[in-house]
Amino acid sequence: MITSKDNQQLKTIRKLLQKRRDGLFVAEGEDLVDAAAANGWEPEILLRAGEDVEPDLLPSSLGSGTRVVGVYRERWSQPGGELSVYLHAVHDPGNVGTIIRSAHALADGPVILGPDCADPYGPKAVRASMGSIFARPPGRADFEALGGTTIALDRAARSPLSALEAQPPEVVCLGAERTGLPSALLRAATLTAHIPMRADGPDSINVGMAAAIALYERRNRITARA
Amino acid sequence: MITSKDNQQLKTIRKLLQKRRDGLFVAEGEDLVDAAAANGWEPEILLRAGEDVEPDLLPSSLGSGTRVVGVYRERWSQPGGELSVYLHAVHDPGNVGTIIRSAHALADGPVILGPDCADPYGPKAVRASMGSIFARPPGRADFEALGGTTIALDRAARSPLSALEAQPPEVVCLGAERTGLPSALLRAATLTAHIPMRADGPDSINVGMAAAIALYERRNRITARA
Repeated sequence: MITSKDNQQLKTIRKLLQKRRDGLFVAEGEDLVDAAAANGWEPEILLRAGEDVEPDLLPSSLGSGTRVVGVYRERWSQPGGELSVYLHAVHDPGNVGTIIRSAHALADGPVILGPDCADPYGPKAVRASMGSIFARPPGRADFEALGGTTIALDRAARSPLSALEAQPPEVVCLGAERTGLPSALLRAATLTAHIPMRADGPDSINVGMAAAIALYERRNRITARA
Repeated sequence: MITSKDNQQLKTIRKLLQKRRDGLFVAEGEDLVDAAAANGWEPEILLRAGEDVEPDLLPSSLGSGTRVVGVYRERWSQPGGELSVYLHAVHDPGNVGTIIRSAHALADGPVILGPDCADPYGPKAVRASMGSIFARPPGRADFEALGGTTIALDRAARSPLSALEAQPPEVVCLGAERTGLPSALLRAATLTAHIPMRADGPDSINVGMAAAIALYERRNRITARA
């Protein structure tokens, strides 16, 4: 039982919660640690309050009440699958984590992170993934390295997402909510499409919502074809 | 120019950021205050940093840097529209706000809040709505008071959402992510349906994602019929 806050493992966790390094990250809480175990991830450190460490000493970004904290080594997937997602400059870690979760539910391929995306292994993104990050580690790649049919979401695109005839594998490409995808990427994509929205509605929707809708729609098309 | 933190308007704003009352709420930042004005909402209080108040004195839940804060009187819509949403026990204000935004983009009716939902006029929900709360104020009603075809989302339901033949007006009904809708509500709903997800995926998806997908799908069906 760890009884000193100067313990080396506690120091490591505190530092990682401040700033990630050495390819390590922290998962806080039973649900995430269980998801890690269920997907065969061995923790580098695993501390349970009251068993391994005095409860008050367990570091957490969630405040008190966290009962278990694990430290794991990040993993990165290669692009692939019949349906996957590519994100460009999605800065918000909650959005990145939520999209990893939606892709786990709706696609067979990973979420591929292009430049300027939030760290998917930061505490907020890991939490938002609700454990899906352990089932489906994200990948990192430039747009140019993607194979298959790239479908760039763009509200100015002519075709609605549902009308696209695309050859799988399909990669749905999304940018940040306000700025969207850079024009060079829109030109380089195999296809562009928009999500139909009401004329009296907002100019855009949250990138997590757009990703969920796009994955749902393209999954239905791929399933109907199979 | 307000130069004392004891000013009555500043006190009111600080109190409202702590706890809402008297039907008033706070909108922080240019985007929200602009959305309020664009939708014809008159502020009860409107303070701009450097114009109406010393910048350091402007209260904010966002930390320093907020340049404008408005106080408004809440409004509530009646249930209605060809397509709308009913939420039951969705506790997270971020989800409530995001769903208000998605409904603004995809549906003509309001988001109706049943029991135990987060306050849609709390600071976090207002921010998550990105101003859509001013364009489409939510409503409050019990499930029993809803008219039209109620479609309860339930992952155990037999029919996928896309296969439903429903008579408009349609009301998509969602519960919290883990618990879902109460069984009495599922029995009372006109129709139940699920969002098809991968067998090797998570047990559920975020309620905001589910709402976006459901609104997208039902909007497409209603549009195709028209």
